[in-house]
Parts: sequence; structure tokens; C-alpha cells
Amino acid sequence: MTESSLIGFSRGSATNAFFHATNPATGETSDLSFCKASESEVLNACQLASDASLKMAALSGAQKAAFLRDLAERIEGLVDQLVVTMTSETGLPEPRVRGETGRTAFQLRMFADLVESGHWVDARIDRAQPDRQPLPKPDLRSMLRPVGPVVVFCASNFPLAFSVAGGDSASAWAAGCPVIVKAHHAHPGTALLVGKAVVESVRASGLPEGAFSLIFGDGRTVGHALVGHPAVKAVGFTGSRAGGRALFDLASLREEPIPVYAEMSSVNPIFILPGLGEERMNEIAGGLQGSATLGAGQFCTNPGIVFYPRGAGGESLVATYVGKMKETASAPMLHKGIRKAYGEGLDALAGCEGVEVLVPASDDSGGGGCHAGASVLSTDAANFLNNEKMVDEVFGPSTLLVSYDSLEDLIRIADSLEGQLTASLFGDGSGLSEFGGLLDVLETKAGRLLFNQYPTGVEVCASVVHGGPYPATTDSRSTSVGTGSILRFARPVCYQGFPDDFLPDELKEGNPADITRLDA
Amino acid sequence: MTESSLIGFSRGSATNAFFHATNPATGETSDLSFCKASESEVLNACQLASDASLKMAALSGAQKAAFLRDLAERIEGLVDQLVVTMTSETGLPEPRVRGETGRTAFQLRMFADLVESGHWVDARIDRAQPDRQPLPKPDLRSMLRPVGPVVVFCASNFPLAFSVAGGDSASAWAAGCPVIVKAHHAHPGTALLVGKAVVESVRASGLPEGAFSLIFGDGRTVGHALVGHPAVKAVGFTGSRAGGRALFDLASLREEPIPVYAEMSSVNPIFILPGLGEERMNEIAGGLQGSATLGAGQFCTNPGIVFYPRGAGGESLVATYVGKMKETASAPMLHKGIRKAYGEGLDALAGCEGVEVLVPASDDSGGGGCHAGASVLSTDAANFLNNEKMVDEVFGPSTLLVSYDSLEDLIRIADSLEGQLTASLFGDGSGLSEFGGLLDVLETKAGRLLFNQYPTGVEVCASVVHGGPYPATTDSRSTSVGTGSILRFARPVCYQGFPDDFLPDELKEGNPADITRLDA
Repeated sequence: MTESSLIGFSRGSATNAFFHATNPATGETSDLSFCKASESEVLNACQLASDASLKMAALSGAQKAAFLRDLAERIEGLVDQLVVTMTSETGLPEPRVRGETGRTAFQLRMFADLVESGHWVDARIDRAQPDRQPLPKPDLRSMLRPVGPVVVFCASNFPLAFSVAGGDSASAWAAGCPVIVKAHHAHPGTALLVGKAVVESVRASGLPEGAFSLIFGDGRTVGHALVGHPAVKAVGFTGSRAGGRALFDLASLREEPIPVYAEMSSVNPIFILPGLGEERMNEIAGGLQGSATLGAGQFCTNPGIVFYPRGAGGESLVATYVGKMKETASAPMLHKGIRKAYGEGLDALAGCEGVEVLVPASDDSGGGGCHAGASVLSTDAANFLNNEKMVDEVFGPSTLLVSYDSLEDLIRIADSLEGQLTASLFGDGSGLSEFGGLLDVLETKAGRLLFNQYPTGVEVCASVVHGGPYPATTDSRSTSVGTGSILRFARPVCYQGFPDDFLPDELKEGNPADITRLDA
Repeated sequence: MTESSLIGFSRGSATNAFFHATNPATGETSDLSFCKASESEVLNACQLASDASLKMAALSGAQKAAFLRDLAERIEGLVDQLVVTMTSETGLPEPRVRGETGRTAFQLRMFADLVESGHWVDARIDRAQPDRQPLPKPDLRSMLRPVGPVVVFCASNFPLAFSVAGGDSASAWAAGCPVIVKAHHAHPGTALLVGKAVVESVRASGLPEGAFSLIFGDGRTVGHALVGHPAVKAVGFTGSRAGGRALFDLASLREEPIPVYAEMSSVNPIFILPGLGEERMNEIAGGLQGSATLGAGQFCTNPGIVFYPRGAGGESLVATYVGKMKETASAPMLHKGIRKAYGEGLDALAGCEGVEVLVPASDDSGGGGCHAGASVLSTDAANFLNNEKMVDEVFGPSTLLVSYDSLEDLIRIADSLEGQLTASLFGDGSGLSEFGGLLDVLETKAGRLLFNQYPTGVEVCASVVHGGPYPATTDSRSTSVGTGSILRFARPVCYQGFPDDFLPDELKEGNPADITRLDA
């Protein structure tokens, strides 16, 4: 059986170029083949999105909310089919599929609530002052408006929550933008199931045809063609540093440069402060093991490097951690490319001067060639500071433990770090006062700082920041999780001297949209 | 006499490379010579800014406000000296110098008020829900924090309000960022006067030395070295399309890409809708002439292209406009480079097929070689749509008048436009209802839409948007004027699970900063 792209309400043609999904747990190849989109199909999707732009921009908050809620419900209704397809395409267990389905629906409804209430548009009002001296003040009113068509790349590690109808798409639709999704080659069947639901919701909610297309094909051909198309105004991406940077470079070199929100690479450092007793250190070791091996270590916020104080407490932490990581069962990673990169990353780290391998990853990669075992390596602060390769992300269930002697060590380490999604401190509350200087540095390095909590399990809410300085993302001013992520796909527009009838409702004198406004 | 850069509290050394300002009205060269900064001086300024980053980030709103107000007062105190220096460096008349001094002080005080009140940080609070099922919700709180050192390029056309202590610098300081300013070669004496005042304010207010440096030198050497320095985290620029794009490209290619807020190029189209009587058309012609020739046409929002309905009203508008532009006295432009580009732009436009020159610009460029006369050219919609060169900005006191026949013409024209800072409609309020489709298109093209108002004279306030899609700027999500411009230099940071004592005041449970917060 052969499937093809969803180009608005049409299907792509059968082509000679196709691919299959492979079960990473077993190595079995799916019967379903997926045709890669042709150049003209990509152009058609972009033209449809361009044609839909003004209609999408004109939708009311209530109309967008109805669409997002309809879609949430359809996706929940697919959960049993998703369990079958997604487990076989990703090797992820059923509870994860059910959990991620729930998160995806939750995100869609969160954005529905956000745009229905309408407060998000940052409405600002400066009323005319005709008698102002030396010059009258005109009437100015501004609010956020959609940027236009957005291209979203499905993430391999979130086949639902950051793929076809995931956070990037949901926030772009909520802002009033058409969305073109590039499916990930590892889970095309999952993408298609969700994509068909999106088309049904687009039809049922009366959105324009170009509100959504789903494109199958390679990143370097189809993906680059999408990012280079003049109709496209922004890009959302979650994936590798090399992949994200390539898209960023392409978008920056366009005749009209466009923003790329690429969420890429982070080692999510953990700083364990001195003064914690052995019992607490062992407890932290347990928590860390859970966080570092969750989903075979394939989370953006996976804690990759742990800095711990030299001494009895530190030794206890290491011993406990090593024991727990040794007992961790191997699990299939998402596809062979990720598994291969994991092995290469571990080898590179093990080859650094002063690095000791405490728990080697198992060589057995299972029937599908994708299984990965947990790994622990260790070094000390001096060696760590001497070799910048040690901060390279190893995507998978591994941890580098780094001992330190002093607060000065920690500050030097923090200073040396690249941008991160998260940085976590563990300590007792009173002890934190000595470490204000460390906190000040970490604030410039990470989007989210945690105290006595583990970085995985990103809360989806208004206050979360899932972002950070490069290379955590290509735009440190943004978050890709939570309601704030809608701001990536909007730009301010000011209306000066407009008659009330021709202002958007959000800016009319009587505030018929009933939203919070900055009344200057 | 020889002057040099301000590197924190030190002065640059005398070098062999220096330059002089020239009076564009007379061609006279100033006695004062300015040394171009050496490579090591640039590095020192960047190092000082980097060293000052955490201290600047730790300043309270009140401390930043005190600095900004102190600086406003010092600049007002300089006004008589500025009148002497700036008029001789720029050819701008005394009232303009006094007016721009006032605007500069106003902007500094506006940001002082903004950061003293503190509401701008977009504080968001999600409280812990320990009993939430299936998982407890952690406590998350987020707010905007400074991005780090910012490089600001002085604008030739706003020697005060968009130069050393202008809008870019003021908003960056207000956000808590150190600022390194690259002076413009055309008005170094003006820059130095203001720069010395900034140093005095930095000292008087107890800000760290690296809060400010002022660098003299060429854009392609010193400017590029600043933008390429790893300590620099953002760039503000107002100037030519080629110059802004070069900085954007440089910043995008860095190992760590950084945002460039370049405000570059805009023809600020004027759409005169059908149905206005001759009297109103003549009135509009008068208003347009004032707007198009203000400051010798050297404003970013100068209306360069006017679309008018063919017919009696249109003919009347053209006749009146031509008469008024013919009577307009020539005036010195800011420097020879701008004057040369004006002549070349007019020649290129006059050479386009179907363009008629109604008012040729005077050939007499005055004693300084910089005088420019007003010019009017005309064509029709069909010719305009046939030649994309006609939309190129001609920076100076010239206007291209374009006749149209139908609403369809206007929509096609709007569709064909590049990004703009502004787009203005003139019509009677009731007539606007037919033109909703035009308005929808213009909203995607411009940052500010005006009705029956002229685009020059940008109001500095909360609601203004001085920005727009490329090439108006390199970041359509931003404004470079008004309180919203502070958002360019800030990024969100989230604190998860923090004890109240270690949260910033803005996020503490008791809201000691007394600011508006999103309490989710």
C-alpha cells in the first residue's frame, strides 16, 4: 500500500521515490510505503498556504478555538490506532503514546482557551490628544497579528506533541497562520494519522484549504525547498544542532530573511551544591537516573552533565548512580541514526583526556539495531575546563559526572558553558545564598533554572520557558512550549488615526473583545 | 585638536588613522580630528561590556531610571553646544537640533518611567499544585531578563534621537544591557558631546564602567569587529539597506548567531482612495509636500510613492503638488554620500519606462556639494506593476506619483510591495468599507497603518510600531521606537521550584515590586 502527502484537501501523486518506516525494536519494515513529495507538490502546498493567509488572519479567536478543540477531540479519538502505529514506528511504549496523545490534546485546548479569551495580542492604546503642545498627539493603537505561513518540522523524539499537530503547529494556528508540516522519516504513519485528522478539522471548522498541508520527503530537498519559498514567513524545528543550523542559515540567506525557531542542543547541566548529606545525595542519584534514562534519554532536557562536590557525599552519589545505571535495562532508540550518533558521542567523550568510563553502554543493539544501554563517565573540573569537546551533547541515556572543589570551579564551569535549555541546582535553601554569583551566570546561559527538581517533564503552561541561548535554540527570545510560544508567530501592527469602525475589535474604543489592554 | 574613542572611563590612543567632519551646507572641514579606534580598543570595549553584563543585569528598575533621568538632564544642558556642533556637522537647522534634543531626553525619561514601574518584564506565575493528578505541578515563574552587551550604530539622519543616547541605546540600557556605540562618521563631534555626558552619568549613577563605550571608526572594520565579537548579544542599526543587510549577514554567520535590529528601507506608500473632492485633494497635496520635504526628505517614514485615482481629483492633486514642490527651496542633505545616492536614485527612476519627470531636482548642490532640491516623477499603475525597480527607495525629497483606475489596481500594487514601515490611506471614513481587502493586504506589508495622516513625525509612545517586514527592518516582530522597543533586548527566563528568597522581586510571592503579573 502506498501513501502520499496531504496538499491541502488533495493527495500527492504516486512517485518513484518512496520510503518505509522501520520498527526500531525489531528491525521490521512496515508494509506501508510513503511517496516523497515532488517539487510541484511543495510549490502547491506553499501556494495554498499563501492563498489562505488573509483568511486565516481574519479568523476570530472563537473560530480558531473551535478548530483547535475539534482537532484535540479527533486526536484523542485516534489514540488506539496511534498506539499501534506509533509503538511500531518509534519503539516507544504504549503508556508514552497515550501520555503524549493527552499532552497534544491538552496543548491544542490550551491555545484554544488562549485565543478565545484574546488577551494574548498585547493590545496597546494611546488616545489622541488634539490639544497637546507643541503638536497634537494622534490616536495610535497596536496589537499582534499573524506573520503568515509557517513551516513546521516534525521532531523525531516527540512524534505527537512536537510533530504534525504539536506545539509548533498549534501555536502557529492559534496566531492565525497557515501551517505546512514536513513529516519526519521515522514515523510517517503516525504523521499521516494525525494529518488526516487535521484535514477533517480544517474542513469541519470552515478553515481555508491552505490552513494545513503535510509533506513527506527528505529534509535536504523538500525541507529546504519549503524554507526557501518566498511565501513562508517563519519556521519551527526541533532536532539536531546540524539540522537546525542548516535551516537557520538557509532562512538567513533568503532575499527576505525569516525567523527560524530551532530547538537543538542542550546538555542541561546539574549543579549539586556542597553540604548535602549522604542520604540526600543517594536520593538525588535516584532522581537523576530516572530523568537521564526516561524515554531512552531522548529528551531535549535530558541531564547530560552533573557537577558534584568532591568528598564523601560526592563519592556516595557516584556509587549509587553507577549502581542504578548498571541496572537500567537497555531500550530501543527512535531510529538507527540516533543510535549511531549515541555510540559515536560516547566514544568521543571516552576518548577525552581525563575521562573515565564508569558504566560502558551495552554493545548489544538488539534486533532492530537501535537498542541503547545507559552509560556513565566521569572526570574532574580541571579536565572538563581543559577540553571544550566535553560539553558536546550526547543524545541518549548517558551522564558525565564531574567533580569540583570550590565555588570558583563552578563559576568557571558555568562561564564556559554554551547556551542551555535548562540548568538545575540541588542544595539546601539556606546554602543557596553563597551561590548567588553562580545563579547570575546561569541565568545568562539557560532559559529555565530549576532548584531541587529534575529538568525532564516540561510543564506546559504560561510561565514555562523552553528555550535558551544558542545552541539550545536559534532565538533566545522565544519559548517553544507554553502559551508564550504563540509570540514566535506574531508581529505588532499599529493603526494610527483609524475610525473606530475599521479598527480590529481588540482595539475598538468600547473594547467589544473584552480583553486586557495597555491603556497608555 | 585630536579626539579619540571613549573606552569605558578611558580614552583611546592617538592613531595615524583619523577623519574630520565636514559641514554639508558649506563644505568647510572641522578643525577637530577624530582617531579611528584600533583593534585593541575595540576588544577592550567589548571586554568591559562583558565584564559589566552581570552588574547591569542586577540593577534595579530604580537604579536604571536614575541613570536615564540623569542623562536626560545632562543632554538638555548641552543643547546650546549641540546647536553649534550639530548644525555645522549636519546642516540641520537650529530648531531641529533643539527639537531632537527634547525628543532624546523624552525617550530617556520614558524608559526611566517604564523600568521604574517595572510592569514591562511580562512576569508570569504558575503556582505549584502538589496534589494534581496524574503528576504534581511544579511552581514556575518567568520574566524578561537582559540579553547582554548591545552594539548600537549611530544613524546619520537622527544624530541625537537614534545615535549615542538615542532610542536604541536607551532601550538597551533600560533592559539592563551594556551598550557599545559606533559613532557615525558624519557627526563625530555631536557623538562625542553626548558620549561624554553618558560617561558622566554612568559615573554619577554608580553604573559599571563597561555600561558604555563610544567607538570612532569605519563600519566595515570597527563596526564589523564589534558585531563579530562573541561578547556582543544584539545589534541596533538605522541606515541603508546594504549596510543593514551586511550586519545582519555577519551576525547570522557567527558561531553564535545574534539578532540584528536593522531599520533600513521603506517607500511608505500613500493610497489616496477615490471620491475625494478637489478641495480635499489640494489639501492632501499640501500635507504631502510638508511630509515629503521635511528634513530634506531624510526620514525613514518619508512618503516616497503616492497612488492617486485617475480623473479630475487626481489631476488637481498632481497640479497642486507639482506647484508646491517647484517652490520648495533646496536644502543641504546630511553628507555627500546621501546626496550622491539621491541623484543616482532619481536618475534610475527617471530611466524606467513610462516614468515622466514633472519636477526635476535642481542641479545646484550648493557650496558643500550636498544641497538637494525636491523632485516629482509620475507614472501609471500598469507601468509601476511592470517594473520592480520603481519600488526602490529614493532617500530624499522626491515623490513618485502613480495613477490608478480601480480597486483591483490597488490590491495588485499592495501585493507587489516589499515590507514597509508605514502605509497610509486617505479617504472619507464611509468610503473605507469598500477597501477592507486593501487594508488586509497592507497589514501584512507594514508595521504602521495610517488613515488621513502623514507618516513622518513618529509618535514616541507605548502603541507605536516603527518596524515592519523586510526590508523595512530585519525583524518584523520588533519596533525601534516606543516602549515596545525594549523587548528587542530581553529574553524570558523561567525559575522552577525556587525558594521565595532567591526569586527576583518581580516574581516573589508577595509581589514586592508591585507590578502587573499574569497569574495563571
